[in-house]
Amino acid sequence: MEVAILGATGLVGQIFVRLLENHPWFKIERLVASERSKGKKYREIAEWVSDDTGDIEVESLEDFLKNPDVDLVFSALPSSIAGKVEEKLAEKIPVFSNASSHRYEDDVPILVPEVNADQLKLIEFQQEQRGWEGFIVTNPNCSTAILMLSLKVLSEFGLKKVNVATMQAISGAGFKGLSALQIFDNVIPYIEKEEWKIENESRKILGFDFEMSAITTRVPVSHGHTEAVFVELSEDISVEELRKAFDSFDPLKKLKLPSYAKPIVYKEIPQPKLHRKLGNGMTVTVGRLEKIGKKKFKYVTLGHNLVRGAAGGSILNAELSYRLGVIK
Amino acid sequence: MEVAILGATGLVGQIFVRLLENHPWFKIERLVASERSKGKKYREIAEWVSDDTGDIEVESLEDFLKNPDVDLVFSALPSSIAGKVEEKLAEKIPVFSNASSHRYEDDVPILVPEVNADQLKLIEFQQEQRGWEGFIVTNPNCSTAILMLSLKVLSEFGLKKVNVATMQAISGAGFKGLSALQIFDNVIPYIEKEEWKIENESRKILGFDFEMSAITTRVPVSHGHTEAVFVELSEDISVEELRKAFDSFDPLKKLKLPSYAKPIVYKEIPQPKLHRKLGNGMTVTVGRLEKIGKKKFKYVTLGHNLVRGAAGGSILNAELSYRLGVIK
Amino acid sequence: MEVAILGATGLVGQIFVRLLENHPWFKIERLVASERSKGKKYREIAEWVSDDTGDIEVESLEDFLKNPDVDLVFSALPSSIAGKVEEKLAEKIPVFSNASSHRYEDDVPILVPEVNADQLKLIEFQQEQRGWEGFIVTNPNCSTAILMLSLKVLSEFGLKKVNVATMQAISGAGFKGLSALQIFDNVIPYIEKEEWKIENESRKILGFDFEMSAITTRVPVSHGHTEAVFVELSEDISVEELRKAFDSFDPLKKLKLPSYAKPIVYKEIPQPKLHRKLGNGMTVTVGRLEKIGKKKFKYVTLGHNLVRGAAGGSILNAELSYRLGVIK
Amino acid sequence: MEVAILGATGLVGQIFVRLLENHPWFKIERLVASERSKGKKYREIAEWVSDDTGDIEVESLEDFLKNPDVDLVFSALPSSIAGKVEEKLAEKIPVFSNASSHRYEDDVPILVPEVNADQLKLIEFQQEQRGWEGFIVTNPNCSTAILMLSLKVLSEFGLKKVNVATMQAISGAGFKGLSALQIFDNVIPYIEKEEWKIENESRKILGFDFEMSAITTRVPVSHGHTEAVFVELSEDISVEELRKAFDSFDPLKKLKLPSYAKPIVYKEIPQPKLHRKLGNGMTVTVGRLEKIGKKKFKYVTLGHNLVRGAAGGSILNAELSYRLGVIK
Repeated sequence: MEVAILGATGLVGQIFVRLLENHPWFKIERLVASERSKGKKYREIAEWVSDDTGDIEVESLEDFLKNPDVDLVFSALPSSIAGKVEEKLAEKIPVFSNASSHRYEDDVPILVPEVNADQLKLIEFQQEQRGWEGFIVTNPNCSTAILMLSLKVLSEFGLKKVNVATMQAISGAGFKGLSALQIFDNVIPYIEKEEWKIENESRKILGFDFEMSAITTRVPVSHGHTEAVFVELSEDISVEELRKAFDSFDPLKKLKLPSYAKPIVYKEIPQPKLHRKLGNGMTVTVGRLEKIGKKKFKYVTLGHNLVRGAAGGSILNAELSYRLGVIK
Repeated sequence: MEVAILGATGLVGQIFVRLLENHPWFKIERLVASERSKGKKYREIAEWVSDDTGDIEVESLEDFLKNPDVDLVFSALPSSIAGKVEEKLAEKIPVFSNASSHRYEDDVPILVPEVNADQLKLIEFQQEQRGWEGFIVTNPNCSTAILMLSLKVLSEFGLKKVNVATMQAISGAGFKGLSALQIFDNVIPYIEKEEWKIENESRKILGFDFEMSAITTRVPVSHGHTEAVFVELSEDISVEELRKAFDSFDPLKKLKLPSYAKPIVYKEIPQPKLHRKLGNGMTVTVGRLEKIGKKKFKYVTLGHNLVRGAAGGSILNAELSYRLGVIK
Repeated sequence: MEVAILGATGLVGQIFVRLLENHPWFKIERLVASERSKGKKYREIAEWVSDDTGDIEVESLEDFLKNPDVDLVFSALPSSIAGKVEEKLAEKIPVFSNASSHRYEDDVPILVPEVNADQLKLIEFQQEQRGWEGFIVTNPNCSTAILMLSLKVLSEFGLKKVNVATMQAISGAGFKGLSALQIFDNVIPYIEKEEWKIENESRKILGFDFEMSAITTRVPVSHGHTEAVFVELSEDISVEELRKAFDSFDPLKKLKLPSYAKPIVYKEIPQPKLHRKLGNGMTVTVGRLEKIGKKKFKYVTLGHNLVRGAAGGSILNAELSYRLGVIK
Repeated sequence: MEVAILGATGLVGQIFVRLLENHPWFKIERLVASERSKGKKYREIAEWVSDDTGDIEVESLEDFLKNPDVDLVFSALPSSIAGKVEEKLAEKIPVFSNASSHRYEDDVPILVPEVNADQLKLIEFQQEQRGWEGFIVTNPNCSTAILMLSLKVLSEFGLKKVNVATMQAISGAGFKGLSALQIFDNVIPYIEKEEWKIENESRKILGFDFEMSAITTRVPVSHGHTEAVFVELSEDISVEELRKAFDSFDPLKKLKLPSYAKPIVYKEIPQPKLHRKLGNGMTVTVGRLEKIGKKKFKYVTLGHNLVRGAAGGSILNAELSYRLGVIK
């Protein structure tokens, strides 16, 4: 399938390109960015790419929209412009979006294949309701995406309550998001709308209500969001049972999706520098699991914010859709 | 009063010296360290000190113990050797210790003046029981000390439950505690015994039982521990009431202790780089306070781990004891 | 004397304020910034200031220029707008500028009091030529200012040639100058026009021609520029003679300028974290001095880029001018 | 050929393993470390390795020496013990060593294949003189290795003089070499013996005498040494000629050595974060080339200290020796 990447020159856009080079199902045909990059060869922006991708001339969003002749669109657009552009494209083409613009609409899935593959069924409803031939599928906010995998396992035992404190990497704020003097030697416990996103996306993804509260912070780490999690369940299981549930969680193994990796790996002391690249960035790490009371546990999880938390998640969504025949 | 500082060349020991230079009540007479530093002028170790302090010749612990002729001892010894040394000295002399060796003994107070000044009464009991003329007073572990001030305010409303995730500075591990490659671009969610200390010291200091669980991490910040806190109270107060309680918390103002500063200052976005030095390192910052449910709140607090969390706390303990006539 | 600070909310502007609070000769009367800060109390921008300074309402440059009724102006304006503004003000008022706009004009001194106090005489010439009552005195670019002090000492032995490689701090680029992802885990060997500035300002300041070449880099350090220097002299002196010349360099001691500190201190291994604050930021450190051939030496020097390299240098210039009666 | 890696668990040792996994000529048979790691599977130390390598049981140096039955040894031993061990092994087996112990002996080559392949001829002399069947070939110190490639190109035009200031990465000091508090927010302009090594190894490798002086510093960068270089030649060439000489430098292309990559790539602004991995870590980057006077240039070069500067260099030496039939 021929694909276009919107926002191809940003941090997330570049990860889309990196992950889609040599993809067995999807072929990068068009790279779309702002007017500023229009006409440049992609290798001027990202010198590590293959000859084929490097030769692609970046086009402006305006030009692309005049003739969006691809089978599939990946969107890494800023939320401020993603809303309308994605709607326009979805009239004809499937759009897999990393932007938050449509996440909270009832007929748009926030998809994490290992967690809520069943929400793909929303697409039919979305198409009917909106009269579209294409559709929009979103992936969650980065820190939510990383957290979802362990919460899915926990939900098997009746998830009642979650307190989570995140330590998020600089790259989550975009290339120019944080000045060096702001974050150097610092922890900044404020990320705009992030806590709201984690709390609300989590409930929509898991599909049931539970108590959840997040404190989100930015720390001087390049890539990889770490999250300290306290949970309360409705069943009283042992730490061994839970550990076993984490270890055996491998729900989509049989589908052989190209980007799929074992979703959770357990390490005694999970650390972003050591573990963010596991499973080519698609695996999250869980560790330091302890039982802290009847039905209560604490643990630490982490994952690559730009892969599992952004581009990689979106690609896995497209792979699932393709495998299940939702896109043809 | 003439004081000795044990472990004077370490990170905490140097903060003791810095804070006690020009102290109105205490005069540094003796600086004690390991055999390795014996005989050096203190200015060879810490070039920023005054002429008087710089001229003091560092003596070995062994030599000091032969003739510990001072009114007061501050101990920044490593826990591995603090136990016996402090006991020996306490037979005759008041010892204010930053080591954990004696913290968990029933007749030894873990003192935070603003929180549990009443525990000073344990000293009389300690002296009787052990037949000592001196005594041992400890201050808490650094991350506990910082957390105690806000928890004290919360305890006025019936503290039932605390989940806390810490983001602790490199300097908390000592000068050689972490190698650069370990912590660079990393978060390490493991600090030996730290979670146990926070949970158990907190209950001893506040003097009642409550549910508490901590996840402690090390982040690439030089100084200042940041803590993300989720609490549940037995009373249902408003966020304004709680904010007001934080703002008005100033319990020892009247005692005019030299190192005392307003214990809590509220900032919208507390950050170690900006706020760790408030109140000369004795003030903790609280911020991002939100109500997250009936009787439930979340907030962030931070403080200087080497001052409020170590040397400064110990000095305040000595000042309180002196003011109240416990040491003469 | 009543002073105004232009650009008072930027990094350098804030250092001006910090250094001028409680200054014995100069009193901060007016704080001037962009339209965006107009009307704010200064304490909203810099919470650490005294009550008096905190109470000052920031005014816009436009408003200030309508009524610039002060005895002295310190300018931390960006070079893009400093040129005309400073000229306008200098018609009536002495302007001490940290901007590069006028540095390279023949009748404007680039002043470093310990190095070329005699260039103050240019002022009379400047006033005559331009018909001004006030004048403009500039201080050098930050990395030049730090380097000048050791080069002055070397020039006593016939400075023939300098190769210098700088390792400059993040704060030299301004608060938003570098994004965290750019400089994190990186060295960036490019700073716009910096090498040209060092080479040309050095010759103008020292007042004679010599071979000079600089490579300037940005490193992940908050404050303090470090410089590795290779020099060739016309005299063949010993390392001891040169070391002695560094140690005894103290040319303005007798003037008792409030901001003056011994200009050079020698340390075996100069390091920005340990030494940038010596002399309240006005002292540069020299170290690792070695003779590497006949008439050839290498050494390392460093200094605080925002103090010695910017605001502090400018204030020392004003103090010298005041002491010598150039401003009254 | 079956190879053993000595010091296989250290930073350099792990890079040896990473680079030799799937090597077409060399097969890792034995992994040797200190007594402490004896008996552990290698995957317990380095979890990223392949199944085959992960299954290898680490043996102690003592055990290995009893039966060193391999075709080739790579040594990443600390210099303190490398001397005698390597000599003992070289009686029978070729040893490619990253240690400095034998570098300065007349009959031991410091080999950089692109620079002084002809020094391989020393081996025959070494074997005769010492009565060995094997031999020792060393690679240079990390910062020397990176610098050699550009200096080789310059030497074609008569290299007369070099001043170099290095900005070296933390990993050059080993895993525990620098504490986090030492290097955080700091530049440390002292690395033991490093300046001596650069100056003396450079002359031995290039095979002629020239003036050279180095100032070496440690900066807060994980991997990649950056070097600011000032040179003087005996010929007066243009910057274009020199640039062309850098671009066309590709001396061993025809040998098709597995680890060989184009040795020099030119980038406008070389940066360790962006360029240290070029050529799989074997390519050095040169940039910012400017002519600064008649016969004088300045430029910046950088390379991966653990690959080009250590393990990769040593492997390239072995590949060259194998290709040329020196080892069979």
